[in-house]
Amino acid sequence: MKINRREFNRGLIGTAGALALGPFKDQAHLRVNGARIIQNLNALAEFGKNPQGGVSRVAYSEADRQGREYVMGLMRTAKLDASIDAAGNILGRRAGSGANLPPQLFGSHIDTVPEGGNYDGVVGSLGSIEVAQTLSENNIKTRHPLEVIIFQNEEGGLIGSRAIDGELTEKELDLVSRSGKTIREGIKFIGGDPTRLAGVKRKRGDIAAYLELHIEQGGTLEAEKIQIGIVEGIVGINWWDVTIEGFANHAGTTPMNRRQDALLAAARFIEAVNRIVTSMEGRQVGTVGRIQALPGAPNVIPGKVVLSLELRDLDEAKIKLLYEKIYVEALQIARASQTKFAFVEINVNVPAPTDRGIRRLIAEAANELGLTTRLMPSGAGHDAQDMARIAPVGMIFVPSVAGISHSPREFSRPGDIANGANVLLHTLLKLDQLDLS
Amino acid sequence: MKINRREFNRGLIGTAGALALGPFKDQAHLRVNGARIIQNLNALAEFGKNPQGGVSRVAYSEADRQGREYVMGLMRTAKLDASIDAAGNILGRRAGSGANLPPQLFGSHIDTVPEGGNYDGVVGSLGSIEVAQTLSENNIKTRHPLEVIIFQNEEGGLIGSRAIDGELTEKELDLVSRSGKTIREGIKFIGGDPTRLAGVKRKRGDIAAYLELHIEQGGTLEAEKIQIGIVEGIVGINWWDVTIEGFANHAGTTPMNRRQDALLAAARFIEAVNRIVTSMEGRQVGTVGRIQALPGAPNVIPGKVVLSLELRDLDEAKIKLLYEKIYVEALQIARASQTKFAFVEINVNVPAPTDRGIRRLIAEAANELGLTTRLMPSGAGHDAQDMARIAPVGMIFVPSVAGISHSPREFSRPGDIANGANVLLHTLLKLDQLDLS
Repeated sequence: MKINRREFNRGLIGTAGALALGPFKDQAHLRVNGARIIQNLNALAEFGKNPQGGVSRVAYSEADRQGREYVMGLMRTAKLDASIDAAGNILGRRAGSGANLPPQLFGSHIDTVPEGGNYDGVVGSLGSIEVAQTLSENNIKTRHPLEVIIFQNEEGGLIGSRAIDGELTEKELDLVSRSGKTIREGIKFIGGDPTRLAGVKRKRGDIAAYLELHIEQGGTLEAEKIQIGIVEGIVGINWWDVTIEGFANHAGTTPMNRRQDALLAAARFIEAVNRIVTSMEGRQVGTVGRIQALPGAPNVIPGKVVLSLELRDLDEAKIKLLYEKIYVEALQIARASQTKFAFVEINVNVPAPTDRGIRRLIAEAANELGLTTRLMPSGAGHDAQDMARIAPVGMIFVPSVAGISHSPREFSRPGDIANGANVLLHTLLKLDQLDLS
Repeated sequence: MKINRREFNRGLIGTAGALALGPFKDQAHLRVNGARIIQNLNALAEFGKNPQGGVSRVAYSEADRQGREYVMGLMRTAKLDASIDAAGNILGRRAGSGANLPPQLFGSHIDTVPEGGNYDGVVGSLGSIEVAQTLSENNIKTRHPLEVIIFQNEEGGLIGSRAIDGELTEKELDLVSRSGKTIREGIKFIGGDPTRLAGVKRKRGDIAAYLELHIEQGGTLEAEKIQIGIVEGIVGINWWDVTIEGFANHAGTTPMNRRQDALLAAARFIEAVNRIVTSMEGRQVGTVGRIQALPGAPNVIPGKVVLSLELRDLDEAKIKLLYEKIYVEALQIARASQTKFAFVEINVNVPAPTDRGIRRLIAEAANELGLTTRLMPSGAGHDAQDMARIAPVGMIFVPSVAGISHSPREFSRPGDIANGANVLLHTLLKLDQLDLS
C-alpha cells in the first residue's frame, strides 16, 4: 500500500487509512512464544550472573562476549543470517520479498550496567529474535528485508548506534570503558574492526524504520495498570556541574549571621530545583544526584560545594525554560547567602521524538491484541534516539515491577514481556505493508 | 585579702570589693614588652614553617619538638624553672612568697593543625611567658607560685590538659595522632613518660586558678571594634551523624511524584537546621559540614545520604532544645519525602563556664588599661575547658583579623596581642591578692 511518507510520519493518516493497515487475515492470530523468550532470558542471565543476584555483563567483558555468542546462536536457530558489523553490533538478517526495499530494523542491547538486571535491553533483544523466529516458524516472508540488531555498549554511551548514525568520534575510541578496555580495544575484542567504522554508517533512507521493545524502567505503567507504553520520544538530557563558592570557616567561632555557607546555599538550590521542576505541568524531571562539600569536616563550615544538575524533557524549549528559572533563583540564593554560583554545561542530549505514524500503528496493534496503552516519554536514553536521526523510529514499553531498573531487583512479568513482543510483531507486520514514498 | 571563694566564683562581690582589688600603686603602670612577644612569635614560626605560608607544627612532629625546645629556652630567659611533666606538658615554675598557697596556672599550646597559622595557641603561650618575664624584670614576687603551662597536643584532642584533669584514658594512648605516632609514642617523643601519667593529675584545690589568653578565632571582636573578649565559657559541642534513607532510582524514568530522594530530604534538613538555630535569640551555632550522597551519580536519584550535624552553645539545655526541634522537623521531612532519618550521637563535649569572679577581674583589668571589652562564648574548644573541671578559669580573647583561624591567613595585630598580655598580667596580679577561702 503506497502512502505519503511525510503524512504518515506526522501521524496525519486517519482512521480509515489505519484500518486499511490491519493485518492480513491469516496473520491476525499470530503470536510469539512467550515461554521461549523467558527460557532464553534465563539462559542469557547466566553470562555475568552475580552470586548475590542480578547480572554484571558490562560491554567488552568476557561475560558480554559469551552472551553475544549465545545470542548469535539464537539468531541462527531463528533462521537469521547472523554477523558482526565493523562497529561490533550483531546483525541477524532475513531477506524480504519486495524489490529494492530498505530493511526494517528492530532490536536492542544485551550489555548491562555493573550489578544490573537481566531485563534492560535483554527483553527487546530476545523479543526481537523471538519475533523473527515466529515469522520463520509460520513461513511468513515480509516484503522488507528484516534486520534484528543487537547494539554493542548501549550502557556505556550508545556506542553501537552512534557508530551507525555517524556520531561516534575517533577521539571517543580511546576512552576507557567500564571493562577497563578502551572502546577501540573493546570493539576488536567483540569481533569488530575499529579501522572500518565508516562502513557501518547509514544515512536517511537506508532504513525503512527502527522499532525497539524495552522495559519502561519507571513505575508509571505498573502504577496505572497499563500493559503497553507507546513512547512519544526519548527525552533530551542536559547536565550541568554547579559550583558554589562560600567561605570555609570554624564552625564554633563563626556566628550564624557571619557565615558564607556553601552547603546551606546548595540545600536551598536543591530545594529550588525540585520546586521549580514540579511547579510546571508535564513530565519533566530535574535531579541533583551528586554532591561534594569541601573541606567536608563536621566542625568546618563548607566553603565550596560542587553538585550536578540534570534536567530531562521531551521538549528542548521546556528544558531551557526550567534552566532559566533555576538560574535566576540561584542568583537570588547566592545574593542572600553571600556565595557565588557557577554553571558549567557538561553534556547535552537533544530530545528524539518517535514517529507519529509508527506510534499510531503500535496503538492499533496493541488495541487489536486487546492490550491497554498510554503515550509516554522515555526518560532514559536508548539506541532509538540515535536511530531517530536517520530513520523513523517507534518504541514499545512494557511494565517494570516497582519501576526498578539498573538493579538486581529489575523485573518484568513474563506475560508483559510476551505482550510487548506481540505488539512488536504486529507493528512490524503493519509497517511492512506500507510503501512510504 | 580574704574573701569568700563561693561568692567570688559566682561573681557576687560588688563594686566596692572589686575596687579594693585594684593593683598596688607600684604595679598599676606595669606593661609587657609587646615587641618582644612578636619577635618571639616570629622566631617560633620558623619551626614547621610552610613554604606557601603558615605553619604545620603538628603535635609530636620534629617541628613540634624543636618549637618546644625554643619555648623552654624563653622560659629560662624569663627566670622560669622549665620542665616537662610525665604527660609531655611544658611547665615553667616561679616560686611565690605566700605560705602553702596553691599555684596560679596560665598558658596555652604551641602545636598547630596541619597548614595552620602561628597565632592559635602561640599568642597565649608566648604572652604568658612574657608576663612572667615582665614580673621578673620588675622584681615582682607574687604571693602564689606561678606556673606557665604549655599544654601538649591541644589540636589533636586536648591531650595535655586531659591528662591533668584525669580525662585521658589508657585506650586513647594507642590512637594514632596526625604525626603518624600513637599518642603514647608521641608523649615519649616529646620527653614525657606515658607510664607515669597518674602523677600529673591534679584535683580541685590543687590549682588557685587557670588563665588563658587566646585569639578569638572568630570575627566578632574585629567587627565590633572591641579590644578584649571576656570569655563566658567554652561552648558544649554535640555532634551527630544523620543517615537519610530514600530509594536510589533512575533519574530519567522516575517521575517527580514517585521519588524518595534522600538528597532532597537532606536539603530540607540542612535548611531546617539553619532556620531553627537562627530563630532563637542567642549565640548558638548549628552546622552541617559533611555530606555524602549515594550512589552519587548525576543520573541516579540519591538513595542514601549521610551528613554531620553539630550544635554548640554555652547552655546544655539549649543544645537539647535545638536538637529536639530539629529532630521533630526531620520526622516531618521524612514523612513528606518518604524517607527515613536516623541520628547517631558521635561526640559530646559539655559546656565549660568560666569563673564569674575572674571574668569581673578581667573586666576591671581591661578597664584600667583603657581597653574596650565584651562578654562572649568561646565557640572553639580550649584546654581551659578541661582545667574548668578542677579549677576556676578565666579566658581572654584578642581579635582575629577577618575571623580567620586554622589557616595560613590567621593573623592578630601586634597591638591587640600586647593588650591581651597586659590584661593577662593585671588579672593575674589582681587574683594574686585574693585568698579564696
